[in-house]
Amino acid sequence: MAAWGERLAGVRGVLLDISGVLYDGGEGGGAPIAGSVEALARLKRSQLKVRFCTNESQKSRGDLVGTLRRLGFDISEGEVTAPAPATCLILKERGLRPHLLIHDGVRSEFDQIDTSNPNCVVIGDAGEGFSYQNMNKAFQVLMELENPVLFSLGKGIHSFFFVARTLRRFYKETSGLMLDVGPYTKALEYACGIEAEVVGKPSPAFFKSALREMGVEAHQAVMIGDDIVGDVSGAQRCGMRALQVRTGKFRPSDEHCLQVKADGYVDNLAEAVDLLLQHAHK
Amino acid sequence: MAAWGERLAGVRGVLLDISGVLYDGGEGGGAPIAGSVEALARLKRSQLKVRFCTNESQKSRGDLVGTLRRLGFDISEGEVTAPAPATCLILKERGLRPHLLIHDGVRSEFDQIDTSNPNCVVIGDAGEGFSYQNMNKAFQVLMELENPVLFSLGKGIHSFFFVARTLRRFYKETSGLMLDVGPYTKALEYACGIEAEVVGKPSPAFFKSALREMGVEAHQAVMIGDDIVGDVSGAQRCGMRALQVRTGKFRPSDEHCLQVKADGYVDNLAEAVDLLLQHAHK
Repeated sequence: MAAWGERLAGVRGVLLDISGVLYDGGEGGGAPIAGSVEALARLKRSQLKVRFCTNESQKSRGDLVGTLRRLGFDISEGEVTAPAPATCLILKERGLRPHLLIHDGVRSEFDQIDTSNPNCVVIGDAGEGFSYQNMNKAFQVLMELENPVLFSLGKGIHSFFFVARTLRRFYKETSGLMLDVGPYTKALEYACGIEAEVVGKPSPAFFKSALREMGVEAHQAVMIGDDIVGDVSGAQRCGMRALQVRTGKFRPSDEHCLQVKADGYVDNLAEAVDLLLQHAHK
Repeated sequence: MAAWGERLAGVRGVLLDISGVLYDGGEGGGAPIAGSVEALARLKRSQLKVRFCTNESQKSRGDLVGTLRRLGFDISEGEVTAPAPATCLILKERGLRPHLLIHDGVRSEFDQIDTSNPNCVVIGDAGEGFSYQNMNKAFQVLMELENPVLFSLGKGIHSFFFVARTLRRFYKETSGLMLDVGPYTKALEYACGIEAEVVGKPSPAFFKSALREMGVEAHQAVMIGDDIVGDVSGAQRCGMRALQVRTGKFRPSDEHCLQVKADGYVDNLAEAVDLLLQHAHK
């Protein structure tokens, strides 16, 4: 593989995944990944532009940023690209009024959105909210529309599905697997004979909106994430470079994946920032 | 179109759909479709072999037959091919122990089946049973298996999906649309990266088991049903002939469908039986 200097040459902007890169979520708000608070601070003091690009859709940006700031991270709402606010922009642009099948934690993002007489459905990672009654209601709203439009806040299981095929053994050892928005999106797609518009990684439109907000071209940007599909493959398909951290949902077998090769593998955000500050912008 | 005599020549056995052909289900047990009780009695007095082939998977055969007998139909449990008992045969043949995500009404069909330490999942039309918790449990069982096996008791929405594309206007006028087992099957398929084995119409294996139990070859059999996909197309793909009745879920546009043409359209079971008694077996 080429030297780091070559691989990181010309980088002017950095997109950072949040969960698994800055912190590990969990009960009581989660904990920072060792070295990440300080690494982010160094990155923000550099000449590189920085933006956050997350698929978080169970929390509003306000709550997410609040959690991260309490953990010591230098981050503000305006720096975060996330599925719910990105969807709000699209709804406004296209004059759409959504029926919302989403997690209560993210509902406040839609406070300014007209949800009367809905002409589309937004599905997010609703967790327990994915009751039969709620799914049926979303289905009925879609079927009453002449041109049913369905937005999915990310489609996380896609990466999971991908990984699951090769990593079944790993999952056998865990007990915390939970169905994500992906399968429920698939269920509505199938029931209505439509295809959802995915707002979130790895959708190219989502990465592009993050790049636009950062003011950097794809070929000048690097994505740092823990997810081989959502972060690495998605960013690369968009013309960006991508570093995968060995934290969060990273698995050792990711480095031997035949379909997806990151531009580099690093132990954590701290190592990524070391390398970027040394080699980027040249 | 050829004369009835030609179209029905050589028929020796009749497979009958139940819901929408014999009776319309609903609150309080439903009601017979006009003329069907008497038509079935005439058919059973003839030389033609008769069997019932249904996708009912919210009721046990016992309950279904009890309902139909109270409505006056001559029918017994042993004459019914249905997804749940057909699945039980497969489970026994292959030594599989299912985790059941099914409607409580059909649970008794699995009374003789070992469900300890499950090594497959059976999903049926669980209705309100499709909670997030129950779906997640099924997902987790599948993901813990080296070779995950998923059986779906029918996949009704497939026909619905098909029809929905052309009949959206019809559905706009109704309010009773309910998600079927199909989308939930699709969700688990997607989440686990597997394909379910469908036990029910229009699966060819399901029709073939009904034919075997009736003791008639496909080319000597006719299916009578109200569903353009589950009954008509499914039976035809299996080498049978198929009559569509203009009762139950039949829609006038079915007769103009480009993809599926029944071998004949009849107003109801009574007309079908008239024609069969006149022209079959010649």
